[in-house]
Amino acid sequence: MSKETQKKANSEKDISLNNMDSLEFSEWYNEILETAKIYDLRYPIKGCGVYLPYGFKIRRYSFEILRDLLDSTKHDETLFPMLIPETLLAKEGEHIKGFEDEVFWVTHGGKNELDVRLALRPTSETAIYYMMKQWLKVHTDLPFKIYQTVNTFRYETKHTRPLIRLREIMTFNEAHTAHSTKEECEAQVKEGMYVYSSFFEALSIPVLISKRPEWDKFPGAEYTTAYDTIYPDGKTMQIGTVHNLGQHFATTFDLEFETADGEKDYAYQTCYGISDRVIASIIAIHGDKNGLLIPPKVAPVQIAMIPLLFKGKEEKVLEKANEIYDKLKKFVRIELDTRDIRPGRKFNDWELKGVPLRIELGPRDLENGKVMIFRRDKNEKFDIAIEDLTAEYLAELMETIHKDMAEKAYKAFLGHIEILEAVESNLLLENIKEAINNRKVVLIPFNEELYNEEFEEETGASILGECEFEGNKYISIAKTY
Amino acid sequence: MSKETQKKANSEKDISLNNMDSLEFSEWYNEILETAKIYDLRYPIKGCGVYLPYGFKIRRYSFEILRDLLDSTKHDETLFPMLIPETLLAKEGEHIKGFEDEVFWVTHGGKNELDVRLALRPTSETAIYYMMKQWLKVHTDLPFKIYQTVNTFRYETKHTRPLIRLREIMTFNEAHTAHSTKEECEAQVKEGMYVYSSFFEALSIPVLISKRPEWDKFPGAEYTTAYDTIYPDGKTMQIGTVHNLGQHFATTFDLEFETADGEKDYAYQTCYGISDRVIASIIAIHGDKNGLLIPPKVAPVQIAMIPLLFKGKEEKVLEKANEIYDKLKKFVRIELDTRDIRPGRKFNDWELKGVPLRIELGPRDLENGKVMIFRRDKNEKFDIAIEDLTAEYLAELMETIHKDMAEKAYKAFLGHIEILEAVESNLLLENIKEAINNRKVVLIPFNEELYNEEFEEETGASILGECEFEGNKYISIAKTY
Repeated sequence: MSKETQKKANSEKDISLNNMDSLEFSEWYNEILETAKIYDLRYPIKGCGVYLPYGFKIRRYSFEILRDLLDSTKHDETLFPMLIPETLLAKEGEHIKGFEDEVFWVTHGGKNELDVRLALRPTSETAIYYMMKQWLKVHTDLPFKIYQTVNTFRYETKHTRPLIRLREIMTFNEAHTAHSTKEECEAQVKEGMYVYSSFFEALSIPVLISKRPEWDKFPGAEYTTAYDTIYPDGKTMQIGTVHNLGQHFATTFDLEFETADGEKDYAYQTCYGISDRVIASIIAIHGDKNGLLIPPKVAPVQIAMIPLLFKGKEEKVLEKANEIYDKLKKFVRIELDTRDIRPGRKFNDWELKGVPLRIELGPRDLENGKVMIFRRDKNEKFDIAIEDLTAEYLAELMETIHKDMAEKAYKAFLGHIEILEAVESNLLLENIKEAINNRKVVLIPFNEELYNEEFEEETGASILGECEFEGNKYISIAKTY
Repeated sequence: MSKETQKKANSEKDISLNNMDSLEFSEWYNEILETAKIYDLRYPIKGCGVYLPYGFKIRRYSFEILRDLLDSTKHDETLFPMLIPETLLAKEGEHIKGFEDEVFWVTHGGKNELDVRLALRPTSETAIYYMMKQWLKVHTDLPFKIYQTVNTFRYETKHTRPLIRLREIMTFNEAHTAHSTKEECEAQVKEGMYVYSSFFEALSIPVLISKRPEWDKFPGAEYTTAYDTIYPDGKTMQIGTVHNLGQHFATTFDLEFETADGEKDYAYQTCYGISDRVIASIIAIHGDKNGLLIPPKVAPVQIAMIPLLFKGKEEKVLEKANEIYDKLKKFVRIELDTRDIRPGRKFNDWELKGVPLRIELGPRDLENGKVMIFRRDKNEKFDIAIEDLTAEYLAELMETIHKDMAEKAYKAFLGHIEILEAVESNLLLENIKEAINNRKVVLIPFNEELYNEEFEEETGASILGECEFEGNKYISIAKTY
């Protein structure tokens, strides 16, 4: 095989994660968190870890997009206490039942035993609705829309997974709203869904939206709509939920207000939340065997600039590289890599870290007034004249990468979906099991009779819920994280 | 008195807080937190409250400035767990002694008692240095500079105060660094101080910098440098500290590294932190009897635009107000107040909220092609042609306000400082006590013999430490918060 052909063959090698089983994927995931310096697990408490600088930046840019979406839809940012008195947490019976085995309890302050045990918030409904009672009096106080980004805690006894199943969920963005009518509340659910769909779109993460079954809704909700994405091993990951709470909590927390007609009514509420799992999903959905691929909008480094320094010609190349760097840093997040190591190692480093673009500048490029550009997502190289490296050009290129990443991710997503239509009912269960075994998420036409916990158990998987897919209504079934 | 003269007299009335005693100030402070919707204390746990949207925005813009300063001096942002195992927290003896009476302990997860009690972090040294041990191996790993913004907890048994002395400190920005030499460590202390001085400068908060006495340094530090500002009641508020930790923690946490010469040495460390107290201080230092005054750089609303709507002329005024608003919102944080209430009430509202500038537009202004501008800091009104309301003009005006606020605050600060020089030693103590009673912060020429805990007790106040003021070296003494 000639060198040329081999190079081409390599670039065509399937580096995607889509043929991995759960164990392989899990190994890949844990390793990439370490090698790309995202999150360090070696903290001496199970299920607690450290966001490293590079991982933190992905978190920062990602949640800034969510924050902008919430701000622009007139949600006000706030911050509530982390501790919740046991008496308050226990106020809503159904709600506390859903959490009581998972709550961490503070019992002592210094050497004193506390009168009332304090919970580390597993979620903030009770803390927030207690305060809402102080604020909401009349219909003109509504709608009321707030959010916060905080840490929450779950005493997980199962296997924990970094950024996926943690005892300290370091990032939980939760919105809480109150409304004067059922219709407005329903419209708010749609706005919450618009915010989340826009957010996942910005990260090129494809999602299946399912209305969760009764037995799997949020404790205390009327109904729950959930966003699931599909990991390379075919298991679904819940990465966002939007709840219509109706007047359930409002009744418990006495969120009564005076209507325009001078009557009394309870507020109608929604809440919705997104956690660190979205960071895990950026990694899982876009990564490949060469490392991470971070969507351009949230990449801590959008361009790695690498001067190729050959002996005797370093100075001029370095000078030009610095000049280009100084120009580009005004409008993109760029790093100039002048470390004293082989270029090949630098290439690997930045590919591992998922930097969407690499710019190489060598002595010959300099002579030709060009640079080489490498697209991490396509594994493709091409050259471009130095003067064409404008803000507009790069913004457009980033946008193209964003779209191509979304398309690629959606293709992989579709590859995991199996629709079982017109299957004879006596074969249905077998077909579902087989598809699940083949790492598929299964959609079957919606059927009231099958939509129950018993059927879920029979499939050996989870019913995600009722979902619309390409215009039709299905029951979605999958192995879940 | 003619109406004209009365107006002038009113505007010259002293609305500053500087003649208030502690009780009056405390009442003013608690009231303004409520009326300006900064922070709500009515949460059912002592010393825990809620950042309301307006207060949260002041926090957000303020800590963004700090973040930018830390980023631009190459500190990397990270996030560490909130829980610290008792065994880890207790590792550094001197350190834990400083905190043990104030730690909240988690003892249970669900219904299970935990094997090891978990502390809610009172501060993060032990958590962070345990992890640093995993990361620092050789001199090339140094310098190492990180920070995080997190919540911390203290089981305060004393009187709590919103944003000042809390059980949950909702905002703690803490930096931690490690270095290979003592000199570099010393230089880092200076960089930390540069960051904090720049931060307080941006907020127009005057500070006294004191090297804390031995008996009041951070538990486990070589020495502590502290930033104190002076509240209207003459008491000082510690709003930032920079610690040189030497090799103290490094020895305990085994932060040994290989030097360039192949020897072994322990890292030299610094840490520094700033909390919600900076938000309390923005309120206390700049506020007056009319309400808040928020420094322009961090004001959630920089300009309140108020159309004066007289019957029959509403439409044109509103149209122009909207036009101006649409233009200005591109470069300032502006609100257009079209509420159906009297203009006077709007004026009071925005003054209470501390918005630095108000723009009024009435029918006569419109005819003249002008608007009225009101400067909250000077209590002054003047008009300007509408076409002169450019980005440059407003930026310059904000900068002038920033400087004038700094000057005014510094003047009040100086008014609270009494230098007792050339006082006969038998009169010194009496003079100090008298000055403290007169709500002064006292500076006496540095004197080794007086620099001890016994003398501190005699004064009935606190020795802040050794401080340089206008080129001379003093002992600073004050009543403290």
